[in-house]
Amino acid sequence: MTFLYYSPGSCALASLIAMEEAGIAYEPRRMDLSKGDQKTPEYLKLNPKGRVPTLVTERGVITETPAILAYISQVSRNVRLAPLDDSFAFAVMQAFNNYLSSTVHVNHSHGRRGSRWSDDAAAIETMKAKVAETMTESVLLIENQLLAGPWVLGANYSVADGYLFTVANWLPGDGVDMDRFPKVKAHGERMRDRAAVQQALAIEKG
Amino acid sequence: MTFLYYSPGSCALASLIAMEEAGIAYEPRRMDLSKGDQKTPEYLKLNPKGRVPTLVTERGVITETPAILAYISQVSRNVRLAPLDDSFAFAVMQAFNNYLSSTVHVNHSHGRRGSRWSDDAAAIETMKAKVAETMTESVLLIENQLLAGPWVLGANYSVADGYLFTVANWLPGDGVDMDRFPKVKAHGERMRDRAAVQQALAIEKG
Repeated sequence: MTFLYYSPGSCALASLIAMEEAGIAYEPRRMDLSKGDQKTPEYLKLNPKGRVPTLVTERGVITETPAILAYISQVSRNVRLAPLDDSFAFAVMQAFNNYLSSTVHVNHSHGRRGSRWSDDAAAIETMKAKVAETMTESVLLIENQLLAGPWVLGANYSVADGYLFTVANWLPGDGVDMDRFPKVKAHGERMRDRAAVQQALAIEKG
Repeated sequence: MTFLYYSPGSCALASLIAMEEAGIAYEPRRMDLSKGDQKTPEYLKLNPKGRVPTLVTERGVITETPAILAYISQVSRNVRLAPLDDSFAFAVMQAFNNYLSSTVHVNHSHGRRGSRWSDDAAAIETMKAKVAETMTESVLLIENQLLAGPWVLGANYSVADGYLFTVANWLPGDGVDMDRFPKVKAHGERMRDRAAVQQALAIEKG
């Protein structure tokens, strides 16, 4: 059996969407980060980083959203979720996912988890104050350069789309004016029409 | 022709090592970040993020270290640089590379590029003050959990090894006491014995 540990509102939504698209049998396992579910000894045995998502397969554990997404695309049964037969196109997809994980998600985290990088309360407030600016810059790059349209990679839907949708859902809360980003907005609406996305959102709602 | 844009001391060393291991014809292109080479209109046309590394292939541009490393492993001619025939093992490698890019490199960046996340000089100083702690935590996880030994994935060398070597070279400067991490230290020594690593370091030195 395959298990996917997630928490509502987190980047784990991207992996939930990919699993729903892929049609792999799995059990979603809800974590309440506010209750410290991710810091229990049982969970830390699975994922010593104490983060979500964690994908537990019959072979073992996979962490980190871009790694999980590429894996799901490789074992997908229902549909083609990545350009697996084209190393260059696959690399472009991975570059997009890595931009989300190592730049955009990191910018977002400075609004809520600044204590990872400073012990000073006043310093953490200055980080919060800059989130709208850094997230706006990030989405500007996505809007103008990275989102080919209608899907991230162009004509073909991929796991990158669920990841963009996940991160884009954070933008209004981060103070980003979405009216400046019509392509990203339309992408989100397109995503909400997909059955797999609706199913993943229903799992998140619980 | 393939070009790899790098700057000395940056994470681009991981891609240089992978290219040297792979035996792909390419031209390394040196960037001086202190002179703003990464902000010229010519470079921003290639990589609008204004960062290194950038791999320019005949098909187009690939950015983000984990994406570049996976790509090089897929087009490698000399040697096997990733478990490409095993989706699970490939995902474990990717998870390792993504941990380096989205957690460890990010922790490191708070020591030198805090202005990305705060406009306040005093706040940036508090970020610098925490780097030794966050980097030590990161290496502890690598030492105890992630580095199978002798190579990152165990018996088989992979592109993840060049990436670990690159990040580990930053640790002394980040205030990490390497004597606490004998496995990571021995890994670094093993890496320095490899011809490809010596060649990549020679390119870096210029």
